[in-house]
Amino acid sequence: MRAHLLLLLAAFVPPAVLAQQDGLALMREYRAAHGPRILADFAELLSLPNVASDSVGIRRTARYIRDALRARGIETELLEIPGVPPVVYGEWRVPGATRTLGLYVHYDGQPVDTSRWRHGPWTPTLYTRAMEHGGTPRPLPAAGEAVDPEWRIYARSAGDDKAPIGALLPVLAAFREHGVMPTSNLIFFFEGEEEAGSANLHRYLDKFRDRLDDIDVWLFLDGPVHQSGRPLITLGVRGVTGMEITVYGATRPLHSGHYGNWAPVPGQMLAHLLASMKAEDGTVLVEGFYDSVEPIGPAERDALARMPRYDEQLKRELGLAWTEGGGEALAERLLLPSLTVRGLASGNVGPLARNVIPATATATLGIRLVKGNDPEVMLDLVEAHIRRQGYHIVREDPDHETRLRYPRIVKVVRGRGYPAARTEMDLAIVRQIVAAAERAAGDALVLVPALGGSLPLYLFTDVLGKPAVIVPVANHDNNQHAPNENLRIANLWYAIDLYGALLTMP
Amino acid sequence: MRAHLLLLLAAFVPPAVLAQQDGLALMREYRAAHGPRILADFAELLSLPNVASDSVGIRRTARYIRDALRARGIETELLEIPGVPPVVYGEWRVPGATRTLGLYVHYDGQPVDTSRWRHGPWTPTLYTRAMEHGGTPRPLPAAGEAVDPEWRIYARSAGDDKAPIGALLPVLAAFREHGVMPTSNLIFFFEGEEEAGSANLHRYLDKFRDRLDDIDVWLFLDGPVHQSGRPLITLGVRGVTGMEITVYGATRPLHSGHYGNWAPVPGQMLAHLLASMKAEDGTVLVEGFYDSVEPIGPAERDALARMPRYDEQLKRELGLAWTEGGGEALAERLLLPSLTVRGLASGNVGPLARNVIPATATATLGIRLVKGNDPEVMLDLVEAHIRRQGYHIVREDPDHETRLRYPRIVKVVRGRGYPAARTEMDLAIVRQIVAAAERAAGDALVLVPALGGSLPLYLFTDVLGKPAVIVPVANHDNNQHAPNENLRIANLWYAIDLYGALLTMP
Repeated sequence: MRAHLLLLLAAFVPPAVLAQQDGLALMREYRAAHGPRILADFAELLSLPNVASDSVGIRRTARYIRDALRARGIETELLEIPGVPPVVYGEWRVPGATRTLGLYVHYDGQPVDTSRWRHGPWTPTLYTRAMEHGGTPRPLPAAGEAVDPEWRIYARSAGDDKAPIGALLPVLAAFREHGVMPTSNLIFFFEGEEEAGSANLHRYLDKFRDRLDDIDVWLFLDGPVHQSGRPLITLGVRGVTGMEITVYGATRPLHSGHYGNWAPVPGQMLAHLLASMKAEDGTVLVEGFYDSVEPIGPAERDALARMPRYDEQLKRELGLAWTEGGGEALAERLLLPSLTVRGLASGNVGPLARNVIPATATATLGIRLVKGNDPEVMLDLVEAHIRRQGYHIVREDPDHETRLRYPRIVKVVRGRGYPAARTEMDLAIVRQIVAAAERAAGDALVLVPALGGSLPLYLFTDVLGKPAVIVPVANHDNNQHAPNENLRIANLWYAIDLYGALLTMP
Repeated sequence: MRAHLLLLLAAFVPPAVLAQQDGLALMREYRAAHGPRILADFAELLSLPNVASDSVGIRRTARYIRDALRARGIETELLEIPGVPPVVYGEWRVPGATRTLGLYVHYDGQPVDTSRWRHGPWTPTLYTRAMEHGGTPRPLPAAGEAVDPEWRIYARSAGDDKAPIGALLPVLAAFREHGVMPTSNLIFFFEGEEEAGSANLHRYLDKFRDRLDDIDVWLFLDGPVHQSGRPLITLGVRGVTGMEITVYGATRPLHSGHYGNWAPVPGQMLAHLLASMKAEDGTVLVEGFYDSVEPIGPAERDALARMPRYDEQLKRELGLAWTEGGGEALAERLLLPSLTVRGLASGNVGPLARNVIPATATATLGIRLVKGNDPEVMLDLVEAHIRRQGYHIVREDPDHETRLRYPRIVKVVRGRGYPAARTEMDLAIVRQIVAAAERAAGDALVLVPALGGSLPLYLFTDVLGKPAVIVPVANHDNNQHAPNENLRIANLWYAIDLYGALLTMP
């Protein structure tokens, strides 16, 4: 197969240049030749439980990745802070390289509610296409068997964020195998608790800062491509925070007949409180919620204008006849902070519903932040709004005396979070990366000022002070953070091509 | 023990009259003498699982009660309609009696969420006092041991509604043992699916109507006494119905970062919908909700005025600093229909909360009805209100085409229910019953036009056309319909006294 590969490559460009430089062409050949092996390796990676709070599973995953990088010739070690998931760190120093790329991935995944998964979250299962479009399970392909790029592999983290690892490993193998050298020094930095809020990332960056100082630009390998299916590069992310709020009725559930019309109903109180926070069109009514938003510049405004108009197709796909914001485009809406009811709970619904007035009602609120929003300040604004609705805020369940003193009591548990980040579009290094990605993606590449999702990017852009470019690869319908997460194989192929191009960009 | 009893009784009234008539005095003596045995028998009754949908458990409970009545000389049989819990039917025909009392009890209990019970719902456990007031478990008393009336026995249906059975059985035993005859014929009619909505009660009353035709008045042995702890007689109940409503976002849970601020949030939509139904002070805003309420008359108005003012004490006990209705008394509020959020569910809260926009949000609404409200009409009014908020109502989960056509979609699952009922206070038979109860209760007796809870009383008052008087016995804080249901022993003693008085009233 290798002879065949070299022959093909030789037909298009001078072999000397190719052998050193064209990672894109190399990887297109390589994945065409080794598809079944790449999928088998990826499935093995996906079979490793990787919830950050599962200390046994997360360390096993870290060791597995460390060993896989080592096997491909990368100087690798686990960076450690006691009691938290390690960072998988690696280096490929290239003689003569004048630039250093930092490659960020997170190898942990979101917690799972296994009852809602069709297969076990860590039982990777290949499907002929997406489940919801009639796909059926099939075995992994045998060596030499053709791989259909519309296949999907289902497992936790298939898209978010083991996909980049599943693509980097064959790229490194191919480069070693074919003697191709990257055009930049590479520093690998794989985090192990991003989905748990990256609580210790700042400590890792601080403790091991000397290893990261010569990085010129960070490449963030995470996130889904554009909803149109087109490849994407983005220069920012929203920040994230949130809170859980619980309102209180009587000290115990009450018979809804004997007390209904007299006893306060927590579910009703919560409905009024939530309704007060956000208008029916999606406008957040919390005072000051939009005040600190930092406006975008002309380059970003221009990129927005060139983005595909995909909203109507997306609405059809998602079964939506309306959207928040009075029909404003999704890309525009992501440049504003959001307030989302992530969860509601009070009493029981369905067959377990009983004729009681529950004692409490709880809502979990997710808040996404944009450049300019401080997480703590935003939580303060929401708390001030809650107080203006007549609520007394407590941090623990109220005691009897407190209950008797305040008509409306809410327990607010503030979440941890971090701010948004955005790198300017017209930096030279950004333009070089975009050009390399365009080689892999063609003119389909979509350039986006900021993604809607969150990464702890501010630690790199604002604390370390380096440019950061996000190069997502997962299909947009990968169900990340939800049951039945999956990766479309065509997106794995795109990741392999893209990394081949980026690692050999001029 | 019997000799001692007769001696005591003989000291106060002529023996001949006593032996035939004074059930109250008899039962006071009897329960003082046989307390431990009465509790042991009651605990055995409470150990029988009795959820109507558990066809094995409910039939076993029915047979147990049938056998217990037979053992006390009552002509007893199970009335059957195939596939539903039987009615335990019994007769005690008294030679010369010119009046027939119908005794209604239900032997089924509310479904349980066992995870929230301290002990198994059918593992009756005696406590030295209420759990929430520091009570501790203790064994059942041995024969001869003193019984503390402040003890509580914890089990499903301890209050609702096995307590009357636990009191009637010793009354019947004592009457037989001491040769005391009731002053009325007795007809026992114990239903087995009241907590499941009494779906077949009308069929039983229709099929076996000839056995019930000579009943002059129905005594409903169900419900808790007044919140002050004072004994209670009431002449009506609220009806009940309800609905479960589910609102829809996208066809699948969406990443709250990539879609938050654009995709509709079901929890937010539900909050607006619920907030539109009811003002913050508890006034229902559904158009026409109060229009069909039948006003009470002067006797009822007078009884209301004489009711104890207990609201402030109740608020202190329940930890409430405010109530719905702007501070109007509970007794007044129960004469209006109510709309209550019984349950809320969307996504997850707590540790399982994830950064998604859930696909649906569900609320379960309980509706209590008063005299004049038709259950179906009330549900229609709520549906009309929902439509006025811009919602399209479906009965099953919407298909994709429906989702794309209607911006706001709600699935409404209408509950079954029944109307309220009320017997007039100034009937002669009502006055006789009140007088007998006053003998057992003293001047503490509270007379209430209508209870807040629900019983299918309309079938007796409106369909059979007979007066119906409700004589509750359970403590008001018995946690009925909730975890850790219990009966205070003093309330069991009151029930025994009361039934003794009623069965021998002039």
